[in-house]
Amino acid sequence: MSATLDLAIDLISRPSVTPLDEGCQQLIADRLAPLDFVAEHMRFGDVDNLWLRKGTQSPVFCFAGHTDVVPTGPLEAWDSHPFQPEIRDGLLYGRGAADMKGSIAAFVVAAENFVRANPNHQGSIAFLITSDEEGPSINGTVKVVEALEKRNEKIDWCLVGEPSSTCCVGDVVKNGRRGSLNGILTVVGQQGHVAYPHLADNPIHRAAPALAELVSIEWDKGNAFFPPTSFQISNIRGGTGANNVIPGTVTVEFNFRFSTEQTEAGLREQVESIFKRHGLHYELKWTLSGNPFLTPRGELVAASVEAIRNVNGQDTELSTSGGTSDGRFIAPTGAQVMELGPVNKTIHKVNERVSVADLDALAIIYQKILESLLTAPSV
Amino acid sequence: MSATLDLAIDLISRPSVTPLDEGCQQLIADRLAPLDFVAEHMRFGDVDNLWLRKGTQSPVFCFAGHTDVVPTGPLEAWDSHPFQPEIRDGLLYGRGAADMKGSIAAFVVAAENFVRANPNHQGSIAFLITSDEEGPSINGTVKVVEALEKRNEKIDWCLVGEPSSTCCVGDVVKNGRRGSLNGILTVVGQQGHVAYPHLADNPIHRAAPALAELVSIEWDKGNAFFPPTSFQISNIRGGTGANNVIPGTVTVEFNFRFSTEQTEAGLREQVESIFKRHGLHYELKWTLSGNPFLTPRGELVAASVEAIRNVNGQDTELSTSGGTSDGRFIAPTGAQVMELGPVNKTIHKVNERVSVADLDALAIIYQKILESLLTAPSV
Repeated sequence: MSATLDLAIDLISRPSVTPLDEGCQQLIADRLAPLDFVAEHMRFGDVDNLWLRKGTQSPVFCFAGHTDVVPTGPLEAWDSHPFQPEIRDGLLYGRGAADMKGSIAAFVVAAENFVRANPNHQGSIAFLITSDEEGPSINGTVKVVEALEKRNEKIDWCLVGEPSSTCCVGDVVKNGRRGSLNGILTVVGQQGHVAYPHLADNPIHRAAPALAELVSIEWDKGNAFFPPTSFQISNIRGGTGANNVIPGTVTVEFNFRFSTEQTEAGLREQVESIFKRHGLHYELKWTLSGNPFLTPRGELVAASVEAIRNVNGQDTELSTSGGTSDGRFIAPTGAQVMELGPVNKTIHKVNERVSVADLDALAIIYQKILESLLTAPSV
Repeated sequence: MSATLDLAIDLISRPSVTPLDEGCQQLIADRLAPLDFVAEHMRFGDVDNLWLRKGTQSPVFCFAGHTDVVPTGPLEAWDSHPFQPEIRDGLLYGRGAADMKGSIAAFVVAAENFVRANPNHQGSIAFLITSDEEGPSINGTVKVVEALEKRNEKIDWCLVGEPSSTCCVGDVVKNGRRGSLNGILTVVGQQGHVAYPHLADNPIHRAAPALAELVSIEWDKGNAFFPPTSFQISNIRGGTGANNVIPGTVTVEFNFRFSTEQTEAGLREQVESIFKRHGLHYELKWTLSGNPFLTPRGELVAASVEAIRNVNGQDTELSTSGGTSDGRFIAPTGAQVMELGPVNKTIHKVNERVSVADLDALAIIYQKILESLLTAPSV
């Protein structure tokens, strides 16, 4: 059994559903302590975070990830217990196998192997591990980054272990992410009886033409790095349940995933101008989940693409699609941020799994990236 | 204390929330038995109904109404207990005072006084009383009418005691009602993650333009007897609650109140053609609450308008507005149907009340209508 698989099994056995960590971070810290990684446990609210660093020099290469996992859903839907990892047909099954305890195991093994082979490497190696990535993400990475910023501790290259791959390891890396902006619209009308519509003001009727306009808009065409900005209504709720009552309000929840062609302020302005033009009486609450960010081709991307090609002959697509990740909190510090992890096909689903061979490949890829960035070119 | 008030108090004291009758119908039957009213108790399901008839000849004049009342809502919101009627400042307070135990008391007193004064009147006098008007209306008036139809027993004139008046007794009578047609639309899309909209199909986005079109339509301009047909969305529900999930379906509940310018089939066809033109995948469930009906000016309306003018000098407006009533079940038999009852300002509300003077006026108006229709013109 490989060292990566061994550690992955140990981590998956711990039922660390957000915000629980269940000792995963201590395990990682203990494991790396003999190699001079200094652990700093940062607990914010109910969230355990770990900042681990070997070395004091620049540049700083950081592995970033999370020990928390999403809930299992109904246990009976799983073929084996989600917290009792099992290997079947070369696949490791368990909650967190792909998102992202497998990556974390590969981080640790890559760091160990690299440090043993290159005890006098350049710069520093760090780990930024949270147990609040799958949850509200309030007391996790964002707080650790704030603490580092406050003491002027900089990350130069940040490799996030999120499962970026679609078919085989390294076929896709994420070199940026779209922004995500949420809005909760409440259109206010006047409740009444459906038999007396002139005494009421139906907010669903008010909202319908404005929503029809919103869903018809092409916000942009995207650009070389980003797909087009998309607008999606996730929830709509109006009505008392009775079929003879005109409701007093309707609430519409929507989300933008937006490219660097847009700004938060610009989107807000466009949306509000539509609501105003339609004469809506409304309340609107905006929440920015993250601005779009992009790491252009640079040392981190180049090192990663090369490492992937060396290990499994795979060409790599740079993508900015998909959900948000904690990379959004790190990128604003000026770090190059990139996501590279296993195949994401089964994440958040029952029977989550990862190929054992992929885990080993990933550990080697990570190690080669460290070699490329933190050792002097051999002459 | 007048006989009408006395009986109204007795009826209101019985907490006959739908479908309960609490002995109200037996009380009415007992009271009218000495005047040769023959009682037929018709129980359908959990609903008590009473058919009471004096005489075997045509024409048949029928008082129609209900002994059930809507729930009280929170007792602490009432100034006095809803089932312990109280008179304050000339107003009788209690659940059902206006809708419609006051009318029923006036029915009974009017019939008593009329029969005593005119023992050899023409035709027949009947009562059709249900305890399921405020509820599902499945085992009430509609079933009694079916039973009468089956044995070919006809009602010629039907006076429904629903509270038709807006400011003072008799200012408005309803000589018809709009139709009511309900639809429940479920638009079917494809659930997915908001970050991957190309893998999903947002049913809210599909529905929005179709709904915007529906709410903009002028269905008709009404006619001499009916206000314009109105379309109202009462409920809309879509979304999982999560703000990152595109829902698989959205459900929209709507209602038409329609004039005699429309038919059920015509409305259904128009709506479905819009959904089809917008390319919606949908399920649609229709429920007809009642077709529109109209009693044109005839003997019943004429007698009523005249009686009102005689008793309180009031001009009467003929209206077809407002909610549905059990009149919709009686009109299709060919009967002239008209609604005349007390002021409806407080019905279904806390502190429901009726003016004591109005109750007495109502009993006299009802009696005069009987005189006008069931006695030979004095020569």
